[in-house]
Amino acid sequence: MIRHLLSGADLDADTATLVLDTAAEMATVAGREVKKLPALRGRTVVNLFYEDSTRTRISFEAAAKRLSADVINFSAKGSSVTKGESLKDTALTLQAMGADAVVVRHPASGAPHRLADWVDGSVVNAGDGTHEHPTQALLDAYTMRSRLGRLAGLHVAIVGDVLHSRVARSNVLLLSTLGAKVTLVGPPTLIPVDISPALAPGIDVSYDLDTVLPNVDVVMMLRVQRERMSDSYFPSAREYARRYGLDGPRMRRLPEHAIVMHPGPMNRGMEITPEVADSPRSTIVEQVANGVSVRMAVLYLLLGGSNR
Amino acid sequence: MIRHLLSGADLDADTATLVLDTAAEMATVAGREVKKLPALRGRTVVNLFYEDSTRTRISFEAAAKRLSADVINFSAKGSSVTKGESLKDTALTLQAMGADAVVVRHPASGAPHRLADWVDGSVVNAGDGTHEHPTQALLDAYTMRSRLGRLAGLHVAIVGDVLHSRVARSNVLLLSTLGAKVTLVGPPTLIPVDISPALAPGIDVSYDLDTVLPNVDVVMMLRVQRERMSDSYFPSAREYARRYGLDGPRMRRLPEHAIVMHPGPMNRGMEITPEVADSPRSTIVEQVANGVSVRMAVLYLLLGGSNR
Amino acid sequence: MIRHLLSGADLDADTATLVLDTAAEMATVAGREVKKLPALRGRTVVNLFYEDSTRTRISFEAAAKRLSADVINFSAKGSSVTKGESLKDTALTLQAMGADAVVVRHPASGAPHRLADWVDGSVVNAGDGTHEHPTQALLDAYTMRSRLGRLAGLHVAIVGDVLHSRVARSNVLLLSTLGAKVTLVGPPTLIPVDISPALAPGIDVSYDLDTVLPNVDVVMMLRVQRERMSDSYFPSAREYARRYGLDGPRMRRLPEHAIVMHPGPMNRGMEITPEVADSPRSTIVEQVANGVSVRMAVLYLLLGGSNR
Repeated sequence: MIRHLLSGADLDADTATLVLDTAAEMATVAGREVKKLPALRGRTVVNLFYEDSTRTRISFEAAAKRLSADVINFSAKGSSVTKGESLKDTALTLQAMGADAVVVRHPASGAPHRLADWVDGSVVNAGDGTHEHPTQALLDAYTMRSRLGRLAGLHVAIVGDVLHSRVARSNVLLLSTLGAKVTLVGPPTLIPVDISPALAPGIDVSYDLDTVLPNVDVVMMLRVQRERMSDSYFPSAREYARRYGLDGPRMRRLPEHAIVMHPGPMNRGMEITPEVADSPRSTIVEQVANGVSVRMAVLYLLLGGSNR
Repeated sequence: MIRHLLSGADLDADTATLVLDTAAEMATVAGREVKKLPALRGRTVVNLFYEDSTRTRISFEAAAKRLSADVINFSAKGSSVTKGESLKDTALTLQAMGADAVVVRHPASGAPHRLADWVDGSVVNAGDGTHEHPTQALLDAYTMRSRLGRLAGLHVAIVGDVLHSRVARSNVLLLSTLGAKVTLVGPPTLIPVDISPALAPGIDVSYDLDTVLPNVDVVMMLRVQRERMSDSYFPSAREYARRYGLDGPRMRRLPEHAIVMHPGPMNRGMEITPEVADSPRSTIVEQVANGVSVRMAVLYLLLGGSNR
Repeated sequence: MIRHLLSGADLDADTATLVLDTAAEMATVAGREVKKLPALRGRTVVNLFYEDSTRTRISFEAAAKRLSADVINFSAKGSSVTKGESLKDTALTLQAMGADAVVVRHPASGAPHRLADWVDGSVVNAGDGTHEHPTQALLDAYTMRSRLGRLAGLHVAIVGDVLHSRVARSNVLLLSTLGAKVTLVGPPTLIPVDISPALAPGIDVSYDLDTVLPNVDVVMMLRVQRERMSDSYFPSAREYARRYGLDGPRMRRLPEHAIVMHPGPMNRGMEITPEVADSPRSTIVEQVANGVSVRMAVLYLLLGGSNR
């Protein structure tokens, strides 16, 4: 098993499959009388969040507590960080306090990688800038596999602001590793020009959602960052929704077995309509539940695995 | 047992009495060597607070932890809520993460009721707008019963800004159910005009605190919302304190056995003077302690009761 | 054992030594398979922080959790404190909720002492104004003893803004009790004029760091409060660093066995250069780790000691 989880690229096919299989075992715990496992008793997981993300923080917190770990939340706002402490000194401090794992969300791409150079414990990237969010990719893969039975050979469309999306980036890396085919869909200004050769061979790009939909098994809608809507990158909100939003008529262009995914939180009416979000094809709530199982698996394998 | 606790009206006399009796059992735990009960081990209680209320949040947190539940605090400030996520999506997310109970404080009256439509787990209303705060009413009833030996036949004066008080509203409902007589006291602009017929038959109204005091067993002072002091509803602060504040001379008009209650936090010198707040008649600190026991009972009965 | 820990002066030599010895036992737990001790199971520790200090809060939180206590964090920002509740009412509320210990950080010197008058539980001063920070002094003493083998007879230079430093004040008190000799070093405006006679006989003062360094076993650099840099007390930043900052050449004036301490967070390049901070003489990371052990010892002795 790896020591840190920083990128979707950290996982080869075997390791990724081990995480997904372990997550499936963790998910069975949720149905038991007592939902806690003693696996990480006495271990300390620190959530080090330099950006607000209650949803991700709670998911990791619930995962760690279900494994009986102690959880310490460190919101970097209003902390010694504001007194000018460097990321390195913060990292060394957390390690000295006994953190066995640091789950880090940071606005700067690459911050978790630097953290991993400094600490002995495990670092989990919970989102760094526009770079990566590997546990999101794992929970997405888990959801696809549990709904569609496999990952190899699936065709996944990732739709929206791919350029700035860490979710997209980690998904592209992981899905390629696991043998799925990915088509990126969005306005030309929001698709990285060099994505196919740079990231992974065989990634397709399309600017026309309607053409793509009939041929995919999965359509993954990305969250629109409304604050970017004034950028030159971005069409107007209305134009965006008209061309790249997923509504009922568009959903009906999908093959019957296809599923609709979204990492949340949704902008209902923007990238996705309520009809689609609440339809049986939508896996949005399952993704959240699977997120806890996947994060349990990641923490368990990083901290409790016998091969360390 | 009921599934949610949203309103003082959710509780019939038998259920309310069951909660109070259970709370009395919970209170005995506080005297033991180890104050924790294993009753809710493996259960997750989420505190979903859209308004700051450290006092109420900590009371629920202490109650849940004493029952060995895991507690996750979700302050809706600086969360995905600020990214525009709907209450419904937040609710579904928390449920998917495995929340067995959601304790919710929300500025909008009725928000907890909507939440209860969406989640499978239990919802506890920890205060919604000017609407209700049922665990406060339960802890008040518990305190009256433990100080005065009974609830049926007690005469309780609720004094102050009744119109905007969720504490008053929940108390009126619960006390009526349990056979106590209530007199609402305050400036005419702060007493709902239709309260007697609308809420509960037999509720009395008075605008003259001094006349009421000699005839009550309990006087419950409401917190003055200072920020409302510029409203047309409100007399000036000095005028308010002169007519409706409880000071030493007024306290001495009470029958010898009568008690003084306040939900806290107090404005000392406004609705209550330090002499009264710190007198032996005052139950203010007991109310806080009883709050933990009552919330233990509520969580235990909602989550651990055998009839679920 | 004492009931509260409010000041370095609360500890006589025997009690201080008991804390340090207990901390050494606690430190051995860190190396075990399961790092938790059941000593404080069922006890509740409240972190009541009126000032941001993530570092100190986390250290106490980790310490309490490692002893199996429940921890409740109460950040006084955005709490009923902002509704005007007095410190006394907050204290009585926390006690009524069952707090066995209150760890308090407050901007007002003396606030923890007042708190201790009101509550039955134990109060630990985690920093009050410019007054005291006794657990910092204990962890510093622990670090000196573990690096240098003893405390009696050590010569310790405390360098910087002594006047406003609660760390300096608590260290002076504790080190004197334990038989170390202290020299305070800093600009004349930042050294209390009456410190020697007032605080402890035999405290030396120097305005010249270079002269002092060859004669000490320990040099403890204080954090510069940058926000004070515009004060009349303070020389300019550059002037300060030139005269009182510890850089490589200065460090080499120390005896070979001497150590460099800093309470963190550091202003690298101001009171200490990276070369010094990251050198083998530096105990800065050890101080953090020792902080958890010392706080475990303090909580254990205050709450779990057999003599209560």
